[in-house]
Amino acid sequence: MQNLAWIDGTINDISKAKISIEDRGYLLGDGVYEVIRIYNSHPFYLNAHLKRLQISAGAIRIDIPYAMEDIKTTIQGLIEASGCSDGYIYIQLTRGRAKRDHLFPAGAKPKMVIYVRELDPIPEIDAIKPQHCITLADERWMNCYIKTINLLPNLLARQQAAEAGAIEAILYRPGEVVTEGTRSNVFAVIDGRVMTHPETNLILSGITRRIVLDILENLSIPFSEEPFTLRDLEKASEVWITSSTMEVNPVGEIDGRSINGFAIGSICLRLMKEFRKQIAENCFEDVT
Amino acid sequence: MQNLAWIDGTINDISKAKISIEDRGYLLGDGVYEVIRIYNSHPFYLNAHLKRLQISAGAIRIDIPYAMEDIKTTIQGLIEASGCSDGYIYIQLTRGRAKRDHLFPAGAKPKMVIYVRELDPIPEIDAIKPQHCITLADERWMNCYIKTINLLPNLLARQQAAEAGAIEAILYRPGEVVTEGTRSNVFAVIDGRVMTHPETNLILSGITRRIVLDILENLSIPFSEEPFTLRDLEKASEVWITSSTMEVNPVGEIDGRSINGFAIGSICLRLMKEFRKQIAENCFEDVT
Repeated sequence: MQNLAWIDGTINDISKAKISIEDRGYLLGDGVYEVIRIYNSHPFYLNAHLKRLQISAGAIRIDIPYAMEDIKTTIQGLIEASGCSDGYIYIQLTRGRAKRDHLFPAGAKPKMVIYVRELDPIPEIDAIKPQHCITLADERWMNCYIKTINLLPNLLARQQAAEAGAIEAILYRPGEVVTEGTRSNVFAVIDGRVMTHPETNLILSGITRRIVLDILENLSIPFSEEPFTLRDLEKASEVWITSSTMEVNPVGEIDGRSINGFAIGSICLRLMKEFRKQIAENCFEDVT
Repeated sequence: MQNLAWIDGTINDISKAKISIEDRGYLLGDGVYEVIRIYNSHPFYLNAHLKRLQISAGAIRIDIPYAMEDIKTTIQGLIEASGCSDGYIYIQLTRGRAKRDHLFPAGAKPKMVIYVRELDPIPEIDAIKPQHCITLADERWMNCYIKTINLLPNLLARQQAAEAGAIEAILYRPGEVVTEGTRSNVFAVIDGRVMTHPETNLILSGITRRIVLDILENLSIPFSEEPFTLRDLEKASEVWITSSTMEVNPVGEIDGRSINGFAIGSICLRLMKEFRKQIAENCFEDVT
């Protein structure tokens, strides 16, 4: 496939797509984004992602310059033109180009860039091994529910995790309250109950997080959207992280302490299987 | 004058300067910057700004891809080519261009963009009127000493201030500790002593802040780099804010409560005059 970018109606190879240095995304971090997984040439939960884009844009008062239906048509056209089967759609919306100033510019037109990139297909469950994580202080700002491009705190924590041999840093706020990962939501089974941080300003409302909660509901597995601490996490019988590109990802070790003997727990395994059914139903069955 | 941008050795009008959409500054906020005031075609305190750029870049582990002397030569060349007398130099350094990933890319070359833009000359002191400010909760991340392009929290607070008729939002952390403004450092005269937040991770180490502290030292005016609260601020006899483009700027009202009867205080006035002497010594006298 070819990795393609769409800017203002023009499609180009990503390598040729450029933006003004005066774009407020580049100069000021004044923008929001979405990442949408493509399976079998179908964007997974596209509507939910576009709704969240509207929430993020609304929170920082950027008007989306295109109708939702037009954005969907553009995305479908990009996927077709690229020949993408497995990949992702990236959407970035900034306040547009203006002479640098903190104040919202009066005349600037918000700028949307959409691109498609290849990804490896989702691995077979048997091929998935539990991963290492570390815990780090959550040093981000107070409005993590907005999916902004101000990702430097996430990058730094994620890099620190990688250098410690971990796939992700699980973040905690003062009081050692576990919020989420640098690019994922965190679930833990504590005293037989699935726990994850509630949807407050401190976490991103993950699409995969929501799918997992719906599956738990359907399977009648008890869960709570309630804060839990590092100490609670230490006694967890299962931990997994979720994101649109990592799906449901089992955690086998945190800060050197193994979880469930480094094996995928039974609840996590059921979720991984059910999540694959979701993919099949949404991206395969309706096209046969 | 012409507003010019320098990228990788090529100088263009700013309007024509472009960057890849895969630059990590645009996609991830993975960069730092500096703004340097130009008076009389001379960059003011250039060495101090370049030193701070090194500190910011070092804090997020970006290697500066040029020698400091070459950067200075580039800046001088830009000022000359632009015909700039009053203006500013903007430097942005990002981790460069790479396929989007939170992890630091192995092969990417850090990217530096430098541009010059016109500004109005510094106004006569008689023309300066004290300004309104508001106070807002400081919702930024925990490492504000790094001058990063993750400026969205600053933009949102500054915009809120502007819509309340204020020039700046003075920010406070939990415990109502006053840190700084969205784009300035904050000074207050409390019980006859000049106070400003110490250089911790919670504020930017302002170049103008440091110049002001040096002037206070030379004038034997008592000052403390110590945290103070909103309650302390309420009893301040003088307040001013400082930045490279606002210089020393008197504050006449905070949250609707006037300060010093909305007149410039005596200490602030001395600082404004001394600051102008600094400009004269650094940017005028040495070139006559």
